[in-house]
Amino acid sequence: MPKFAQRMTTMEKSARVVEKLFKSMTSPETISFGGGAPAKELFPTKILQEISYELFGAPQQGQRMLQYGSPEGERELREVVAQFLLEPKGVCAVPEDIMIVNGGLETMNLICQVFIDPGDVILVESPTFVHCVEIFEMFQAKCVAVESDEQGLCMDDVEQKIRELHPKMVYVIPTFQNPSGKTLPLERRRKLAELGSRYDVLILEDDPYRDLRYSGEELPPIQAFDATGHTVLAGSFSKIFSPGARLGYVHASPAIIAKLYNAKTATNSQTSTLIQLLCAEFFRRGYFPAHLERVIDLYRERRDVMIQCIDRFFPAGTRRTFPDGGLFTWVELPGGINTTELLEQAWSYQVAFMPGEGFFVEGNGKGTNCMRLSFGNVSPENIRVGMERLGRLIADAAQGAN
Amino acid sequence: MPKFAQRMTTMEKSARVVEKLFKSMTSPETISFGGGAPAKELFPTKILQEISYELFGAPQQGQRMLQYGSPEGERELREVVAQFLLEPKGVCAVPEDIMIVNGGLETMNLICQVFIDPGDVILVESPTFVHCVEIFEMFQAKCVAVESDEQGLCMDDVEQKIRELHPKMVYVIPTFQNPSGKTLPLERRRKLAELGSRYDVLILEDDPYRDLRYSGEELPPIQAFDATGHTVLAGSFSKIFSPGARLGYVHASPAIIAKLYNAKTATNSQTSTLIQLLCAEFFRRGYFPAHLERVIDLYRERRDVMIQCIDRFFPAGTRRTFPDGGLFTWVELPGGINTTELLEQAWSYQVAFMPGEGFFVEGNGKGTNCMRLSFGNVSPENIRVGMERLGRLIADAAQGAN
Repeated sequence: MPKFAQRMTTMEKSARVVEKLFKSMTSPETISFGGGAPAKELFPTKILQEISYELFGAPQQGQRMLQYGSPEGERELREVVAQFLLEPKGVCAVPEDIMIVNGGLETMNLICQVFIDPGDVILVESPTFVHCVEIFEMFQAKCVAVESDEQGLCMDDVEQKIRELHPKMVYVIPTFQNPSGKTLPLERRRKLAELGSRYDVLILEDDPYRDLRYSGEELPPIQAFDATGHTVLAGSFSKIFSPGARLGYVHASPAIIAKLYNAKTATNSQTSTLIQLLCAEFFRRGYFPAHLERVIDLYRERRDVMIQCIDRFFPAGTRRTFPDGGLFTWVELPGGINTTELLEQAWSYQVAFMPGEGFFVEGNGKGTNCMRLSFGNVSPENIRVGMERLGRLIADAAQGAN
Repeated sequence: MPKFAQRMTTMEKSARVVEKLFKSMTSPETISFGGGAPAKELFPTKILQEISYELFGAPQQGQRMLQYGSPEGERELREVVAQFLLEPKGVCAVPEDIMIVNGGLETMNLICQVFIDPGDVILVESPTFVHCVEIFEMFQAKCVAVESDEQGLCMDDVEQKIRELHPKMVYVIPTFQNPSGKTLPLERRRKLAELGSRYDVLILEDDPYRDLRYSGEELPPIQAFDATGHTVLAGSFSKIFSPGARLGYVHASPAIIAKLYNAKTATNSQTSTLIQLLCAEFFRRGYFPAHLERVIDLYRERRDVMIQCIDRFFPAGTRRTFPDGGLFTWVELPGGINTTELLEQAWSYQVAFMPGEGFFVEGNGKGTNCMRLSFGNVSPENIRVGMERLGRLIADAAQGAN
């Protein structure tokens, strides 16, 4: 067999190991807070039944859905992004500066294609979203963690590391962060946009959870404060429409969009025309506001139940975040409990979670006593049952450790 | 703006220039033999109306279509590939060795991610498919052309260049090649598989047109002769189902599929679950054989009309290929006619084609008197009208050159 490329040597991370562990645990009785999947009962199946029936039945629309489209995406969907998803958040957008991609994650890959040479430094949060780190490392970037406090990324440390390390970009999930559930406050957003402009550093703003706000005050994206085109905003339809559709979008300066167009062409030509037109029609027919309200109401309840259960079933000294939105909360356990080892015992308690260690690029045992808990795809009843099991597991492990 | 990555400097090729020229020419009156799009009147819109209505209406199926799937693709569709597309062609396949991708082209990108380091040599046909060369060059590979004769790739030259240049892979479209319409004969297929094994070189077999055969005898893919796992077979649903769906597949050895899985995860996680299940159902309900027959009958007629028109309207001394299938024929004009310049005059004749020059990696003016003609998406009546216009354009240009 011919030799694999250099970039493939970085691709066997601990996250992959955890993934395998999860697969081995899969059973209908296991209650899993591990994955980040949305609640399937929320998916607009009936609406899409109606829309697909009508579009496939209209000869011109039906043929158009099945024919080649364009690398930048169908105009209708780019208009939907501008009108329904960006303008209400304070980002002034025209369809020409928007590209449709095959799911939110594809933007990170395309931005790496456009900007990352081997050895380039990327500043990331601590903890950060592990799948994007995998992408960055596949492009042979060097990921360096920036300090975080209760409110997220610390701006002093960002600036210091920019001066020291001259990174190509800063990768940040500012709203209901994955995995921590934290939200970067207004002043830090403004500051981060300024730092990008001042030091000529790209800010890659990954914002897939933005519309899922259950409490607290709406905040504009970092990009709203960017006057120089240094911020790239990556959005997704996965959490507000459907993850199985594989639809995301990127909003960036014309010069960056032009390069992304080339990278997209050389990756997979275009995103599915069929899916784009179905999704655009969902918004154009006015279904989005009521759908989003249902989604938010359901997740809010689940978040509240999850938080109550942590406070009730987890040991004294446990620290947790309170996410104002999104799908995750982050827990730091007291004592010397290693959550990666804990997960191996979890199968006999029929409960699962995501150990914290894999979310840190620093290594050094950081996050070994942490876990990410996802409440989106578990019913309130099952959250209670599963969290009680998890509490028992932790108590038993703590006893074993003593 | 931060500096773009090194790889982006290779992305402004002549093909892109031609694309822009095409866009500027677009008018409803222009008859275009330029693009490679399939005939939209063949798309199974009514069947997909029925299938999508039923699947979205069945709660479990509807939810599954909209939920996350797996990076390797839905099992149903991988079974369809094995049963309907590979086994009948003499390739013994199990679903585990198949991965679903976002359109046929994505396989080339993923294979480059897995195998290509900057500076690696890739042997390509002469002429070859220009969009794949763009991908190879984005990965900073060095593309070297191998000699072709009337039957395609010359095996002596392949072997000599393998010995001289130690390429990582050979990229070949063996069946109804794009752009030439040629088909590699049986003995050369066997030989190419042998060369891959003997010299430890990857054979990337791009075979999106295989099922569109209008005449001549069926041939097994190169991969059918490969005993060592050196051949990667890239297939597509674009020409037999729908290009707008964006569905392709790759069949390779388990070791290569494992690495492709990692690369796919880091590119866009997975291909749309919704589209995969719609397509799988199209095959499982038995619609494919009759659909393919309709497709073949329609394209066969168009090919025949196109060939008759070349022989009738083009000047004496014109050389052309006779494609046994696919969507393209290749024409070499007599005299000193430059087809890139010809295309600039074509707008006033309301006809378009693809100039030959961009399909050669050699440069040096190779192919400047050639053109690719696509007959798939033009009605027989319009082929006659358009080819008569094109004949007149050529005659006028020849006169102008004298």
